[in-house]
Amino acid sequence: MSSDQPQPAFVLVRPQMGENIGGAARAMLNFGLDKMRVVAPRDGWPNERAVAMASGAGRVLDGAFLCDSTEAALEDCHYVFATTARARGLTKPVVTPETAMKQAAEMIAKGEKVAVLFGPERAGLENEDIARANAIINVPVNPEYASLNLAQCVLLTAYEWRRQSAEIVHERVDMAKTEWANHAEMEALERHYEERLEEAGFFYPEEKAEGMKINLRNMWSRMRLTRADVQMLHGVMRQMVRWKERE
Amino acid sequence: MSSDQPQPAFVLVRPQMGENIGGAARAMLNFGLDKMRVVAPRDGWPNERAVAMASGAGRVLDGAFLCDSTEAALEDCHYVFATTARARGLTKPVVTPETAMKQAAEMIAKGEKVAVLFGPERAGLENEDIARANAIINVPVNPEYASLNLAQCVLLTAYEWRRQSAEIVHERVDMAKTEWANHAEMEALERHYEERLEEAGFFYPEEKAEGMKINLRNMWSRMRLTRADVQMLHGVMRQMVRWKERE
Repeated sequence: MSSDQPQPAFVLVRPQMGENIGGAARAMLNFGLDKMRVVAPRDGWPNERAVAMASGAGRVLDGAFLCDSTEAALEDCHYVFATTARARGLTKPVVTPETAMKQAAEMIAKGEKVAVLFGPERAGLENEDIARANAIINVPVNPEYASLNLAQCVLLTAYEWRRQSAEIVHERVDMAKTEWANHAEMEALERHYEERLEEAGFFYPEEKAEGMKINLRNMWSRMRLTRADVQMLHGVMRQMVRWKERE
Repeated sequence: MSSDQPQPAFVLVRPQMGENIGGAARAMLNFGLDKMRVVAPRDGWPNERAVAMASGAGRVLDGAFLCDSTEAALEDCHYVFATTARARGLTKPVVTPETAMKQAAEMIAKGEKVAVLFGPERAGLENEDIARANAIINVPVNPEYASLNLAQCVLLTAYEWRRQSAEIVHERVDMAKTEWANHAEMEALERHYEERLEEAGFFYPEEKAEGMKINLRNMWSRMRLTRADVQMLHGVMRQMVRWKERE
């Protein structure tokens, strides 16, 4: 994932703690975002604590665009989202991170530039900044307990960006160097168990034997076994027989 | 949101740093989850640092179920997800947090108990723990940079739980104590501007006047104004006239 990937710019407005700037850089890069803009960071720039916290995501900080006003940070942007935790008395569309990043992906695909504003840790964005945004992003947190910090808010928004813009495989099976057993292999396994269990006197009483065999076969087929599983189950049965023969 | 809400149990397996346990509690409660289970925490229990970090989410820690093995933590569960960052050489379904929490919501709606295992910070879950799970949750991070910590992994999973289980309003407009202007109010505004601009000689040359008026009306109607906006725009025009009359 390179920085040539079209993507929204994440704008940290007047961030206070270097740790949070570094945390935001990591959160972004986890989901393939590396275009950060920083407006008037409290402790100047570059920020040592941000660099220390960013660990492998230092290049997000190195490439960050530094400026001294929100206006300057948004100059080239066509659409701006502002993240806020509380209502601000401004008439404005309010969307979830999911909807916002879906809209962002659509606009970016048309060549438009999109930015997301994140406010300072303590108080969040000023209304002056929010009035510059086209829409507000509000994370659907528990109304009785909302305590997302800056890096977490960046993390969830970046996660939604990747969810809306990347091809994600939602369900797969990690095959761990094996493959599904085919029908012949399953048949052989079922036969092996049936024969040995027959010898062992498992299918008793006789009038229940047929039903017991069907239940056993049904269980194997429901399980969807791999070749490795089949080999292991053959081994289990062989070992039980060996053990019995040692007696 | 009360703890009576059916929900998955989040199981922290052998967590190391108290800060991360507290962070996980906060992350959970942000999305309405308060059923934590803790397996063999490295620094004992209760953990002061966890309590300090949890701030308002202390009740998640107070209500946590403490036990000394993963087996004991899962006793009453019907389906178990394990979160891992890397492939483990175990044949197992691998799903995104989104798919996992969708499946969890379906199972929980049927009365089944679902748990999600989160491993210790440094190395993640042991294969022994993962072999107890029915499926693996893998967050779709940037393959070139994956650095989610324990609380962030809990945060994203909890976020997906809320997204899959709660009624979320994805798009609304914060009306900020006003309402949309109705057609009559828009007409009055358009007339006001048209009349004053006519007096001011704005619609010139005459052959373009009709087109200019249409464009102006079209702009107003495209904007979707509130009553407060309409009042403000009346005020703008009145003030310009007053200013001119003071000359």
